[in-house]
Amino acid sequence: MRVKLILSYDGTNYCGYQKQKNVNNTIQEILEDAIFSMSNKKTSVIASGRTDSGVHAKAQVCHFDTDSNISGERYIGLNAFLPKDISIISAEEVTEDFHARFSAHEKTYEYAIYVNEKTREPLLDRYFYHSTKKVDLEKMQTAILDLIGTHDFKAFNASGSGATSTVRTIYSAFIKSKENKIFISVTGNGFLYNMVRTIAGTLLEIGQGKLPASAIKDGIEKGDRKLLGKTLSPCGLTLISVKY
Amino acid sequence: MRVKLILSYDGTNYCGYQKQKNVNNTIQEILEDAIFSMSNKKTSVIASGRTDSGVHAKAQVCHFDTDSNISGERYIGLNAFLPKDISIISAEEVTEDFHARFSAHEKTYEYAIYVNEKTREPLLDRYFYHSTKKVDLEKMQTAILDLIGTHDFKAFNASGSGATSTVRTIYSAFIKSKENKIFISVTGNGFLYNMVRTIAGTLLEIGQGKLPASAIKDGIEKGDRKLLGKTLSPCGLTLISVKY
Repeated sequence: MRVKLILSYDGTNYCGYQKQKNVNNTIQEILEDAIFSMSNKKTSVIASGRTDSGVHAKAQVCHFDTDSNISGERYIGLNAFLPKDISIISAEEVTEDFHARFSAHEKTYEYAIYVNEKTREPLLDRYFYHSTKKVDLEKMQTAILDLIGTHDFKAFNASGSGATSTVRTIYSAFIKSKENKIFISVTGNGFLYNMVRTIAGTLLEIGQGKLPASAIKDGIEKGDRKLLGKTLSPCGLTLISVKY
Repeated sequence: MRVKLILSYDGTNYCGYQKQKNVNNTIQEILEDAIFSMSNKKTSVIASGRTDSGVHAKAQVCHFDTDSNISGERYIGLNAFLPKDISIISAEEVTEDFHARFSAHEKTYEYAIYVNEKTREPLLDRYFYHSTKKVDLEKMQTAILDLIGTHDFKAFNASGSGATSTVRTIYSAFIKSKENKIFISVTGNGFLYNMVRTIAGTLLEIGQGKLPASAIKDGIEKGDRKLLGKTLSPCGLTLISVKY
């Protein structure tokens, strides 16, 4: 039987989603331990994609296979075995042709930034990147439109990533703001390693006037990492949803 | 010289504002240590009021006296000596007739709740109380109006509090909501120990149908704690502002 889970987590205290040797606080390992505690079955839980160390998820999607006779929807009970910063939102049995990673059509990420030229804001620091410079929001809102469409995002691909193709399609990209908070929302068929954090850094530097308004466009066209801004910290990034 | 500080903090990891014997992680103690590190002067920092263990502040106001020759506004530099979850927003010299506690005219607190009948939401748990029951928001919005005015809030006063008078004036009280989030905002000339958390608990139970719509009014009129709801956890409470 294959079980699909939707889960939410605060990634602050975790070394990302994917299990690694010599690292014992990944979301995957904690999830697999919880499944073992509940069902006495060892399994491997595959996510729609890894989230990096410190990255959050509002609704990450995973699946696992088991020969336990516990019904799919009862895995909501994993919450009793999980720490407070990881929560199962839904659990259900799915057919074998569902694959959390390969069946995913669309993912939405949000990157959150607050602007305060004077001081840190402790009530925001956990989920936002802090810009100590004023930004021109309109410039950012115009520049983000350059992401939309099918492009080779080679320049946005972190070195060391094993991606075979760096072509991705961005379906929508926009920026909302409220008071001194900025939310960068990007939806696409997939994202390269660190891509959203580099998009956020480039947009921020465009807004701060450190990079030209055409930096996103130039980066896509020339495929040159040096034309882009820095990769912002993981704390501001949240995987919002995955569609199948 | 007297210095006025405005500070923001995430109270999760602290035992409240006020210094206590055998407790070393209060906001006050950390602040006084930072002032000592910066100026080599021992002082006592008086806040507009204590916030309890786990309660947050967006803009708490404090003052302290010092004979150091560091100018008032330079105390913004305390940020270099403070942990990440405490931040000085502003610092200035004030006259001796300013007193953070006694000169305060008005305080605003906000209590945040999210409603989710199925599961916890890890990205909200740090700053919200989780209601696992649906609520009737309109009922809450009507009931909160009973707080407004000058009343004896004896029923809302936690036992063991040393308050001499339990009469307080509430200037405004209202509820905002967004998606499944509820924000209870209360502004008054002062608040009793645990008063806002008990107001929030009473309103929540009115919304959940566990208490009659008149519970706030009845509690004020009869002065009986038993007519009110439970005192909600500190994580949902934030001191928003203090006016002088």
